[in-house]
Amino acid sequence: MLNIVLHEPEIPANTGNIGRTCVAAGAILHLIEPLGFQINEKQLKRAGLDYWDKLDVTTYVNFEDFLAKNPGAKIYMATTKARKKYTDVKFEDDAYIMFGKESAGIPEEILVDYKDTSIRIPMFPDIRSLNLGNSVAIVLYEALRQNDFPGLEEAGNLHRLSWDM
Amino acid sequence: MLNIVLHEPEIPANTGNIGRTCVAAGAILHLIEPLGFQINEKQLKRAGLDYWDKLDVTTYVNFEDFLAKNPGAKIYMATTKARKKYTDVKFEDDAYIMFGKESAGIPEEILVDYKDTSIRIPMFPDIRSLNLGNSVAIVLYEALRQNDFPGLEEAGNLHRLSWDM
Repeated sequence: MLNIVLHEPEIPANTGNIGRTCVAAGAILHLIEPLGFQINEKQLKRAGLDYWDKLDVTTYVNFEDFLAKNPGAKIYMATTKARKKYTDVKFEDDAYIMFGKESAGIPEEILVDYKDTSIRIPMFPDIRSLNLGNSVAIVLYEALRQNDFPGLEEAGNLHRLSWDM
Repeated sequence: MLNIVLHEPEIPANTGNIGRTCVAAGAILHLIEPLGFQINEKQLKRAGLDYWDKLDVTTYVNFEDFLAKNPGAKIYMATTKARKKYTDVKFEDDAYIMFGKESAGIPEEILVDYKDTSIRIPMFPDIRSLNLGNSVAIVLYEALRQNDFPGLEEAGNLHRLSWDM
């Protein structure tokens, strides 16, 4: 299973939206505190719709707690400061892809230890950046593509609508 | 330039979000009426932030109007009903990728004429689907990847932050 890690996310609608993407893609969500919201907040559930209870989600008190509880995790850091594109790496089928808070990204104190596995999404620089939820979707689906969409193809084919094209 | 086409979009926040993605990716947005909102509505501008005025966007009264004004367009239809995955096709660098309304997708009357270029995003079927904005981001960035991120790499490198890793 692929893993999405959000480091100190601030906006509940983004995390709810990312939770929905993780359920759709069969990915595990990891949330590193402090969060900018309560995990059971009504707003988050609304953004995550009725899918939040189907989500495999774990919360950690800080980055060290996350590392201690996921020993050996192969971690990719999504940051606009990376030299490599997200399409330049080969994601393992159990990779962890981490995204920083909306306002500031992943702190440099963390990034310095992950230079070889830091990745960026190409985009025009004269706007702030892609929405966090879209960034997660783009990188997660590239990792899924590289691994031939594990589990998703069989599941989809079983439930395909009768009007097939 | 790649083109994103939204057929009768209903939710202004989604269209605003997709506009932001198009600006970041250097894609053109096409909106086919009826829309579920006014194009200058405050809500849409808020979702699109301050980038809407940088967006190349055109509105059409219906699908026939869109076809007439974009002769020879190579159109891909994103639909959960497609047999091909979005990674099974080779997107031209001026391809058009169309998405249907949030509640119902693209009508079958249109899809029947595009069986060879209908595409789907693999996902687990026991939830409704990915959010429309995320679906656009996933397929658009696959088309960009296939075309080596035209224009985006040079632009990004010119403006890269000094703290480079």
